[in-house]
Amino acid sequence: MLTIALPKGALLKDSIRSLKAVGLDFSGFLDSNNRQLQMLDESGRARGLLVRALDVPVYVEYGQAQLGIVGYDVLREKHPNVAQVADLGFGGCRLSVAVKASSPYRSPLDLPIHGRVASKFVTCARDYFRSLDLPVEIVPLYGSVELGPITGMSEAIVDLVSTGRTLKENGLIEIEVLFESTARLVAHPLSYRLNHDGLEEIVDRLRSRCNPVGVS
Amino acid sequence: MLTIALPKGALLKDSIRSLKAVGLDFSGFLDSNNRQLQMLDESGRARGLLVRALDVPVYVEYGQAQLGIVGYDVLREKHPNVAQVADLGFGGCRLSVAVKASSPYRSPLDLPIHGRVASKFVTCARDYFRSLDLPVEIVPLYGSVELGPITGMSEAIVDLVSTGRTLKENGLIEIEVLFESTARLVAHPLSYRLNHDGLEEIVDRLRSRCNPVGVS
Repeated sequence: MLTIALPKGALLKDSIRSLKAVGLDFSGFLDSNNRQLQMLDESGRARGLLVRALDVPVYVEYGQAQLGIVGYDVLREKHPNVAQVADLGFGGCRLSVAVKASSPYRSPLDLPIHGRVASKFVTCARDYFRSLDLPVEIVPLYGSVELGPITGMSEAIVDLVSTGRTLKENGLIEIEVLFESTARLVAHPLSYRLNHDGLEEIVDRLRSRCNPVGVS
Repeated sequence: MLTIALPKGALLKDSIRSLKAVGLDFSGFLDSNNRQLQMLDESGRARGLLVRALDVPVYVEYGQAQLGIVGYDVLREKHPNVAQVADLGFGGCRLSVAVKASSPYRSPLDLPIHGRVASKFVTCARDYFRSLDLPVEIVPLYGSVELGPITGMSEAIVDLVSTGRTLKENGLIEIEVLFESTARLVAHPLSYRLNHDGLEEIVDRLRSRCNPVGVS
């Protein structure tokens, strides 16, 4: 049976809506009383797994799920061995460099050499500053990255921005966008190639509702 | 001014109680309406930072906080460069290997060679299985690790257990304890050595309420 890994959190509602539009109903996961992490779709054709966004590509990479929905930011940070088969269009945000509005920095190249940059996106931040040939120390944080500049621990942060409200509330401003992110449909490469469980048909139907990757 | 990093989540209430007993009151962080991540103690002598448990040792290592409270499990997993100065005694739990109750495995050495072990504690899990000379693949997960054996992705998990309720609800049993964990008081090594901001006095008073590390 086809298994689809769905991300908890911000992308869940739109993920469920997209799947519903192609005939797979996992809306039970949205029920506030739901404690189940696995659920059959109402037609009994597919199984949904409700996991942390960062875990979606793990389940797909190991073939425990043949399909998954996850933000492009996660794919860029973790480089999982999964096939990115469609841009689902929703969940738009961007990975940006931000600094204190009161700082003198208005571009990443203004940052001091060997300065510090706090981020949950350690790989993306490191790759980006390497591409600038600017040696900085990346400070790995797991939450509330905006505290980095506020406490003086770091000169800048690299973090996801959607509305920009968190930055504003904390006196920070964006000075550069690393990349834009949206929700992506990913597939287990071998299952997709062998078209297990009618995978291709579901991918095609989800794709026709949105943009195939590269054509967006 | 002395800054103390406090962990969000399970250890927060007892952390605040411990500090209150030595005259530092951060109970404002427990107010359900609180959105502040920084707060002065009522006497104005110290500042509290409310951060993710995994971030506590980062703030202390970088000297942004001179003291922090964090679970021993985080110290074992991340090996931060901080001084562990007291065992605060609360927050007891253990890092354990667990498998499906219906599986044939009753000891880690029963696990198949090149089997899979899902864990949030990748370093601890890898070190432990290396010490057994049992080659396994560690699958890094961020949440709901119990899904590993349930979905068949892994034969076992390495995860924190406190009451054991989550394991039981998911049909899993503990087959080995890697180590026991409690909340620890950690200090920025140089600040502690130089006794910045009367650090030693506060550490001594917290210690006298509980057990210095190594004497517990």
